[in-house]
Amino acid sequence: MRIIQKYGGSSVATLDLIRDVAKRAITAKNEGGEVVVVLSAMKGETDRLLTLASDMHPDPSPREMDNILATGEQVSIGLFALACQGYGEKVKSFLGFQAGIKTDDQHGRARITDLNPARLRTELAKGRIVAVAGFQGIDRHGDLTTLGRGGSDATAVALAIALKADVCEIYTDVEGIYTTDPHICEKARKMDRICYEEMLELASLGAKVMEIRSVELGMNYGVKIHVRHAHSQASGTLICQEDSDMEKTPVRGITLSVNEARVTLLKVPDQPGVAARILSLIAKAGIIVDMIIQNRSFNPGPDQNNWTDFSFTVPLTDYARTTELMDAAVREIGASEVIGDDNIAKVSLVGMGMRNHAGVASLMFQSLARENINLSMISTSEIKISCIIEKKYGELAVRALHDAFELDKQAPKTV
Amino acid sequence: MRIIQKYGGSSVATLDLIRDVAKRAITAKNEGGEVVVVLSAMKGETDRLLTLASDMHPDPSPREMDNILATGEQVSIGLFALACQGYGEKVKSFLGFQAGIKTDDQHGRARITDLNPARLRTELAKGRIVAVAGFQGIDRHGDLTTLGRGGSDATAVALAIALKADVCEIYTDVEGIYTTDPHICEKARKMDRICYEEMLELASLGAKVMEIRSVELGMNYGVKIHVRHAHSQASGTLICQEDSDMEKTPVRGITLSVNEARVTLLKVPDQPGVAARILSLIAKAGIIVDMIIQNRSFNPGPDQNNWTDFSFTVPLTDYARTTELMDAAVREIGASEVIGDDNIAKVSLVGMGMRNHAGVASLMFQSLARENINLSMISTSEIKISCIIEKKYGELAVRALHDAFELDKQAPKTV
Repeated sequence: MRIIQKYGGSSVATLDLIRDVAKRAITAKNEGGEVVVVLSAMKGETDRLLTLASDMHPDPSPREMDNILATGEQVSIGLFALACQGYGEKVKSFLGFQAGIKTDDQHGRARITDLNPARLRTELAKGRIVAVAGFQGIDRHGDLTTLGRGGSDATAVALAIALKADVCEIYTDVEGIYTTDPHICEKARKMDRICYEEMLELASLGAKVMEIRSVELGMNYGVKIHVRHAHSQASGTLICQEDSDMEKTPVRGITLSVNEARVTLLKVPDQPGVAARILSLIAKAGIIVDMIIQNRSFNPGPDQNNWTDFSFTVPLTDYARTTELMDAAVREIGASEVIGDDNIAKVSLVGMGMRNHAGVASLMFQSLARENINLSMISTSEIKISCIIEKKYGELAVRALHDAFELDKQAPKTV
Repeated sequence: MRIIQKYGGSSVATLDLIRDVAKRAITAKNEGGEVVVVLSAMKGETDRLLTLASDMHPDPSPREMDNILATGEQVSIGLFALACQGYGEKVKSFLGFQAGIKTDDQHGRARITDLNPARLRTELAKGRIVAVAGFQGIDRHGDLTTLGRGGSDATAVALAIALKADVCEIYTDVEGIYTTDPHICEKARKMDRICYEEMLELASLGAKVMEIRSVELGMNYGVKIHVRHAHSQASGTLICQEDSDMEKTPVRGITLSVNEARVTLLKVPDQPGVAARILSLIAKAGIIVDMIIQNRSFNPGPDQNNWTDFSFTVPLTDYARTTELMDAAVREIGASEVIGDDNIAKVSLVGMGMRNHAGVASLMFQSLARENINLSMISTSEIKISCIIEKKYGELAVRALHDAFELDKQAPKTV
């Protein structure tokens, strides 16, 4: 049994917490496992370093930032190793480059390109616990790189692949993956299992437990990812291949996002290439568009041309810039007007079983209508339905849908 | 002109001080130099890390300690690089291993075994300032090592050798090397030049400005070392080869050490091998002996054997252990008694010119006698005379000797 355990910053925030983590790793080893522990920086440390750097330079060079930031994890693994030794355990800690983690040279958001864990294998074979600094690697120039947000998860999953681990345990400060945010809906239920695809949709829709890239990586290589609480013995949620039980359940999770805004161009000419022109303007500005809706109007104008209204959503932080861009381009595009709305919420249903259950959308719309919630945009994918509604109804919508699809039950409603 | 500049922890204690250091490096570059800057950890940072580690484990593993401690310099060089960039300067920072600094695997006190600064040469050729993390390297296993006390000085001197630098500037919080400690003797004078041998004696006798190992390294390769103040434009003291001016001056510096104690074995049989037996007991305990004096007695005992009293000095911190050891061995050695004295001071004169000036010892003893200071041990080397005296007379002795040898003058007394 070979296990990768990854602990986030809040799980190693103090020396006592690091000792707890060490005990946990030792227990896993004593139960017959080979254990590799991936650690983040102690909570607060990365912020301390970021502040130092940004106080020094308003726009710090990514290469130098990486040198500074990589120290956080380096301290964590050293302290973890000392904690293990305090319990009489054999252990060695490794920086990203010592663990053989090669990346591209995109400082601050590097991707792992190669992983040769030869040294780790040797140490595991000697009966040692191995600690690896998360979030970091080395590029072909020999420079340190960091992997960006959720980088330690990526380190853990990549090590699980390279070492053919039986499971990759992601320890965090929640019990696992819930049917929805327990802060919004008290009936939210922890799921025992969830498949990669569902987890990807949930993560991209705003569930913050795991970073998308790591789930994707795990999916591509079939790594079993066990998300669980760092200071609880209860098992958490296993992210794995789809199974037949999942197929039977149409809706598995509900997410709410209030970090988007809608922009609508009114009376856009309904001609080929118009949508592309609009979106390329947005893309050039580095803004990521989420939902896109185009509705053809069947009331042709005086010139007998057809018109359409074109709506899309962008991150709230890019809203002002987007409306500026569109205002400047409205004439060129041939639209009549730009209107926007940042008072919106996106509520989404996710489930692999949705593919085989026709009634999901219908039940969703009914449930929202029963609460007098109006839908301003709808977007669907094979395993997801998202609706844009007024922001103030967001949490109510989540609770109504959670009830309607009976997600508090082990075997939820089939529709 | 290729310059190595090394700044200690107090010179980079805050972001503002790091900015000052960056300006200084940029000035040196603008004056036509290729500049390599070696930095220590920000003052207080190493202590913070040591406390974290020792709170985690009373006797931390040196390998893990090195992983933790090496982060201090890593943060300094990153911040320094950002400071340079803030002034629009081209710069790159390098960790010890990236700068090609190979060491043995003695964690916590590693020695540099090889230095291949290929990457540094490339960056210098591109017109960049290069910053290197002091105090650290990598061993043949690929593990990080630290160089122990004064390690950043060693990094700087080693880089000066490998890069054939014209000068290695050691920036510190004093103006240079003084004839004696200015806190003890207000007439103490900063020297413009001092030769390696004198500096070595002064350093090993307690002058704390530079670590012995780095001076030795500089001497072996003829590196000019310029010790100067980090926040003053005045030139400091150049440590270099002996010149004829130095030869003319019999005494160049005076040191005082109050960190030793004397141990005396009375009535030791005056036979071959006795001294070796005593000292091997001390050496086995890892205690470093400084002065050794053996005085033959010419009053043979009733068995017609000759006796001697055998005295030596040890660091004050090892005094209790040494007397215990000697008490236990007194019978085996055949001595009559062990007596000790920790109420002593060692005052020393140092100077290359002493070799050619016969009257130094005589003037020293006269000057001390004039102050009614009694000498309990005397030890001489080619360029040094040390006397053990009562502790309370230590500072008085320094001032008296400083006056007697006229060290406040550019051309001191010839004797």
